Amino acid sequence: MTGPAAPAFSIRPEAAEAPPSGIVEVFSYARGREDLIPLYVGEGDLPTPGFLVEAAQSALAAGETFYTWQRGLPELREAIARYHARVWGAQVSPDRFTVTIGGMHATQMAMRIVAGPGDEVLIPSPAWPNFDGAVRVAGAAPVAVPLSAGPAGWRLDLGRLAAAVTPRTRAMLINSPANPTGWTATREDLAGILALARRHGLWIVADEIYARFVHDPVLVAAGRSPSFRDVMEEGDRVMFVQTFSKNWAMTGWRLGWLETPPDLGPIIENLVQYSTSGVPAFLQRAAICALDEGEELVADQIARARRGRAIVCEGLAATNVVDLPPPPAAFYAFFRVLGRPDSRRLALELVDRAGVGLAPGSAFGEGGTAHLRLCFLRDPGQLEEAVARLARVLPDLARPQAN
Amino acid sequence: MTGPAAPAFSIRPEAAEAPPSGIVEVFSYARGREDLIPLYVGEGDLPTPGFLVEAAQSALAAGETFYTWQRGLPELREAIARYHARVWGAQVSPDRFTVTIGGMHATQMAMRIVAGPGDEVLIPSPAWPNFDGAVRVAGAAPVAVPLSAGPAGWRLDLGRLAAAVTPRTRAMLINSPANPTGWTATREDLAGILALARRHGLWIVADEIYARFVHDPVLVAAGRSPSFRDVMEEGDRVMFVQTFSKNWAMTGWRLGWLETPPDLGPIIENLVQYSTSGVPAFLQRAAICALDEGEELVADQIARARRGRAIVCEGLAATNVVDLPPPPAAFYAFFRVLGRPDSRRLALELVDRAGVGLAPGSAFGEGGTAHLRLCFLRDPGQLEEAVARLARVLPDLARPQAN
Repeated sequence: MTGPAAPAFSIRPEAAEAPPSGIVEVFSYARGREDLIPLYVGEGDLPTPGFLVEAAQSALAAGETFYTWQRGLPELREAIARYHARVWGAQVSPDRFTVTIGGMHATQMAMRIVAGPGDEVLIPSPAWPNFDGAVRVAGAAPVAVPLSAGPAGWRLDLGRLAAAVTPRTRAMLINSPANPTGWTATREDLAGILALARRHGLWIVADEIYARFVHDPVLVAAGRSPSFRDVMEEGDRVMFVQTFSKNWAMTGWRLGWLETPPDLGPIIENLVQYSTSGVPAFLQRAAICALDEGEELVADQIARARRGRAIVCEGLAATNVVDLPPPPAAFYAFFRVLGRPDSRRLALELVDRAGVGLAPGSAFGEGGTAHLRLCFLRDPGQLEEAVARLARVLPDLARPQAN
Repeated sequence: MTGPAAPAFSIRPEAAEAPPSGIVEVFSYARGREDLIPLYVGEGDLPTPGFLVEAAQSALAAGETFYTWQRGLPELREAIARYHARVWGAQVSPDRFTVTIGGMHATQMAMRIVAGPGDEVLIPSPAWPNFDGAVRVAGAAPVAVPLSAGPAGWRLDLGRLAAAVTPRTRAMLINSPANPTGWTATREDLAGILALARRHGLWIVADEIYARFVHDPVLVAAGRSPSFRDVMEEGDRVMFVQTFSKNWAMTGWRLGWLETPPDLGPIIENLVQYSTSGVPAFLQRAAICALDEGEELVADQIARARRGRAIVCEGLAATNVVDLPPPPAAFYAFFRVLGRPDSRRLALELVDRAGVGLAPGSAFGEGGTAHLRLCFLRDPGQLEEAVARLARVLPDLARPQAN
């Protein structure tokens, strides 16, 4: 055997070409600036409450520091099943659940199962950039299906989704309520997507992590957004990714779960084994506590988001240079500034001129490149200050006459 | 577009074909048995000491519960660099380190970078089964290069390694000291492997996590096993995977690190982003504490392993039916029972007849299928009892006349 004369030390293209996050650029630009109000990241501003912290501390002190069940503590998987019964009225067997290192790890494993080189995955866009990244790292090709933006908000055109299916399509990654747009599928949307999946033998990977952060009165009355579990039947190939991050103020804990048809259990057990080898048991104790004793916390988080939404939507509307239909769900304002299609540059300018950190829409792919994303799961006083700062400079930065 | 008449709902072969761990079968068989002495898993029996538990508890109480740096806290990456200077006498820049969800996540990311469909990775065998799994999940093909077993222990034949290189070979995964064999590469072995890598443009992924668990007098005098960093030069393409699990009794914390050439930093940042999105900051505080204040603990762990090794090696040798050259390093006895090449069946019998849980060599691939692995980083009294139990039944179970 003789190797190449000039050794290649090759790097796999799917690793090398994973796109950097466009949010990180603004985040890095703003790092270290005093008095910046950081609204670019998708997390609240409250640390995890004491009762959850104490649950983890106790488990640590009790010596739960050994290797544990690859798919999660049986007690946690049972607590997740109880939670599903309570929130979705669904009887889901614990053997459908796998505890993961955050929702991202759940999404990554789902992608590894459904798509690889040569495959395509449909993603309504604009979308959280990590969906695109997870598909690319799996070696597959993400295919953006643009949502339509109108005065009443974002909408998915089912015909457009159907037209994007090719013989290479393997799955649809459906995030509803959506980050960053707040788009929330109706029950009819979900039934239509499911019918399309059945017709073509496509997987659905459903990210419904914002299901309880609803603000539109109809959704508030229902207590949650419509879910694929409202329309699916036994045998449908739907996976759900979930996270403890948002509902229970646990972003930094890296705890989530993946729900799959039960026959995938052994495959997922191996994927866990060969990626993270499980989730710390002492963190899982806090997760059980969140599910069983965290309802008041969830209600507080939702109320905080709803108050933030009112402050931001009313304050930005008053500038008269912002296009922002109030999002029906989730906790993001995703808005355009008149005459400014260059969101990346505008986001950098707003760091300098307003002292407010926003995520550029260019980070979220097709259909949102002219937008900015603002996270409103934050202290109301801080949001009022941020809106006041934006209101001072946006009329200057907007160019209503330009286009 | 028309899909297939009978939808396929396809599952990617690299996900579906990831092999189950052969250790788990025995573990599951023994679950719930009273009085079983569990020596099949590669971890010690002491929970994480209080000073590390308290570091995590304090960080939790201080509210370090938010998203954090994708590649790890800068303070931790600096602590890792200090640790490298102390143990290996190596000046390594912190920008070569990425904090990971255990050594497994580090190994997985390394594999994603160097190998994919159509590629081959050489692995001296017997080997920790997760190496094989990580290569397969990346879509690549593991190629076992059998170590030679002799009366003086295990040995790597460099000619055999070189002969296994093909145009598809992309990397060599070198675990020294090795799990399960204890094989420890000499400096000359490492220089030879490195020369081979340079000649063919191959990556080296080095797992030296047992570097400090050395028992052979020459290694003890050196304070650690030989390392690729003793022979490599600037520009060599070597990655190191590391873990907090073994040295600091933190198996269940899922904390490790990956060391790479610095130009891979942005690629690894993306792979972290799209797999786990970082490691909990409050756990990283304990990791800093382990590196900066944990030397006494490491010394205790090594002494415990060395005492366990003496108990197990002497006790099993006295049965006269066991072939076990004392391992120069790590904390595993990897031994054959005369006339019993069927390690899987023997491991199950030993659960029933001796009340001792051992890992079957069949789980570790070619070259070790007739062996059993016993972890001796355990309470000396418990190990004495385990050896006494084995000594009672092994002469019965062995078949010296059979082959």
